Amino acid sequence: MISEAMINLVSKSSAIREMFEEGNRLAAQYGAENVFDFSLGNPNVAAPKEVNQAIKTIIEHEESTSYHGYMNNSGYENVRESVAASINRKQGTHFNQNNIIMTVGAAGGLNVIFKTLLNPDDEIVVFAPYFGEYKNYASNFNARFVVIPPDIPSFQPNLEAMKKAITKKTKIVLVNTPNNPTGVVYTEDTIKELAAILEQKQREFKNEIYIVSDEPYRELVYDGVIVPYLTKYYSNTIVGYSFSKSLSLPGERIGYLVIPNEAADFDSIVSGANVANRILGFVNAPSLLQKVIAKCVDVEIDLEYYDRNRKTLYGALTEYGFECVRPQGAFYLFMKSPIEDEKEFCQAAKKYNILIVPGSSFDCPGYVRMAYCVSYETIMNSLPGFKKLAQAYK
Amino acid sequence: MISEAMINLVSKSSAIREMFEEGNRLAAQYGAENVFDFSLGNPNVAAPKEVNQAIKTIIEHEESTSYHGYMNNSGYENVRESVAASINRKQGTHFNQNNIIMTVGAAGGLNVIFKTLLNPDDEIVVFAPYFGEYKNYASNFNARFVVIPPDIPSFQPNLEAMKKAITKKTKIVLVNTPNNPTGVVYTEDTIKELAAILEQKQREFKNEIYIVSDEPYRELVYDGVIVPYLTKYYSNTIVGYSFSKSLSLPGERIGYLVIPNEAADFDSIVSGANVANRILGFVNAPSLLQKVIAKCVDVEIDLEYYDRNRKTLYGALTEYGFECVRPQGAFYLFMKSPIEDEKEFCQAAKKYNILIVPGSSFDCPGYVRMAYCVSYETIMNSLPGFKKLAQAYK
Repeated sequence: MISEAMINLVSKSSAIREMFEEGNRLAAQYGAENVFDFSLGNPNVAAPKEVNQAIKTIIEHEESTSYHGYMNNSGYENVRESVAASINRKQGTHFNQNNIIMTVGAAGGLNVIFKTLLNPDDEIVVFAPYFGEYKNYASNFNARFVVIPPDIPSFQPNLEAMKKAITKKTKIVLVNTPNNPTGVVYTEDTIKELAAILEQKQREFKNEIYIVSDEPYRELVYDGVIVPYLTKYYSNTIVGYSFSKSLSLPGERIGYLVIPNEAADFDSIVSGANVANRILGFVNAPSLLQKVIAKCVDVEIDLEYYDRNRKTLYGALTEYGFECVRPQGAFYLFMKSPIEDEKEFCQAAKKYNILIVPGSSFDCPGYVRMAYCVSYETIMNSLPGFKKLAQAYK
Repeated sequence: MISEAMINLVSKSSAIREMFEEGNRLAAQYGAENVFDFSLGNPNVAAPKEVNQAIKTIIEHEESTSYHGYMNNSGYENVRESVAASINRKQGTHFNQNNIIMTVGAAGGLNVIFKTLLNPDDEIVVFAPYFGEYKNYASNFNARFVVIPPDIPSFQPNLEAMKKAITKKTKIVLVNTPNNPTGVVYTEDTIKELAAILEQKQREFKNEIYIVSDEPYRELVYDGVIVPYLTKYYSNTIVGYSFSKSLSLPGERIGYLVIPNEAADFDSIVSGANVANRILGFVNAPSLLQKVIAKCVDVEIDLEYYDRNRKTLYGALTEYGFECVRPQGAFYLFMKSPIEDEKEFCQAAKKYNILIVPGSSFDCPGYVRMAYCVSYETIMNSLPGFKKLAQAYK
């Protein structure tokens, strides 16, 4: 008696989430130290100490009815002002509270902006490989999901293919840099070209095409790589952000949308997103955590931790003969499966209690994703298993 | 360039929320003590001290990666077990963690269960007056919203009218007791009759019809009134709950769904709701607050505070000659407008800095709603204004 759409959604469910559940079961069975769960982007790094200090300060010194209470559906004004000021300091932009809407994580933010912008049958263009949930978010609003095939091995967005795929129904081009699952950061040249093509297509179709930039991994970059801020290259850019990874708060569901003044129909988008936040059932981003963000918006996570994992895992796997995309950002390593059917390879890895996600989950079969936001010991202890896998498939 | 549906939604927006914003503006202008804002169900009572104690205990003694991290999309198992045990203690039911899904407030829970159950064009039956957001939630899933006219002056659900309105497309009957906006509690007789009619209609149409019971005000009842637990009267009952009002945590977005084993298609509903929680963008109910709930699930709010407001406001308004529904629960007072056009009456009240919501917002014109979850001083200081209004419309 559940809906027909839901029957289908449950049967497909999420391979990643299933694996996360399986990892928990295996950990209970074999001991957590003997299970190498690279399935989920669930940071193993504790939240910076400033987060809990902020929580204590707020609950000791502010009014319960304020920090536990309702506020404007878009979030507390001073929290949004703090977020805007932080982006301005880092990016040289000129946002203020009117450009910021606090959301229930990046997932909440994406659903809010999709609800705001999309008519049924509007098209969302997305570059494979992509976070599988995007497809579900598009389907929430009966949008058409247009997938651009991967550009292997660069894994930069395939702009030539995009150019051909854009139609008069294209409303959103969804990008994700640093990228999940590849760890690739889009170059400034790529972004300039992307912007130029979209400008031209807007003129051609006399239509607005919005870039929605999903950026939960913005702060997680290595080797001094720069992640260009897309609003500076293309006016119709809306940024979705989350503190899940940058402050290790994935369970808390706290993030924001940036809607620049330059975006076409700015006032309506801001009003629409405010209403969407409410009527989709979020109502508002969690209140106490909003106040925490105002105090911690510039706190930095211990990047060294992930960087050591990245170098160790990438170094070992390439040494064993695996072909890997060198990650520049996020905490994912994307590796070519030694056999065509990467699902079979993932099954084989399970024999060594290694849990990795098939590339098919990201519309990129033949590859596998490892989330290296795990302990260093997990990385080290998983290596003998990976070595045996390499030998088995040599 | 925002969607056509959203243009419409923004233009209608929420009269209640607009008034809340206006109240904040007026408070800034005239001083909070001179504005009598009865617009929003935003509790003026601080959260019980146990809430902040629980927050401190958790952040001092547990692991950051646990209480700030991801868990099963349905919530932490032990939190769900605590919630189930609490309901069992109070209601004599037999739930366990498998019956509970932690949600982003009751609004999140309703959207989750709607997404799970509803095919496009399925019908949701609702009794006027009702919380206006229900209509938006139904429209999120392209369901048909079937309104049963109010039964004045009892404001019990009009079951005769419902009987005629149920069709083979009816999937959900949405009830809300204690009721927003009337404060009325459905009697056990009403519920028994409701259940009997739905049993008969299920047989007639060879279909499952679910009661979805929205119960954020369950704990807020006065004069010893009993609120029957609907799962005990009708198998296909799903309960949505929120701690927004019972623990004064409306900004935190924490609640749950109860899906009883007896509900038809139980396993699919549970799986579907788990997936819906994820893909609607909630992902999970906020993690730290979930853990707080496990520690505070039986903590009681200071009901005396609301009860004093209730008696004072009801007593004064009826003495002035207004016709009011005597509230048995929640923290709303529903009053007959002295003139047919209650919006005009609300405007007139604004002259005395009194903000009240037109009944049209609840599909019940001719009445007005006052949220008395304000300070006692606000009640007392508003009375001269109400007295002048009464005299003006005598």
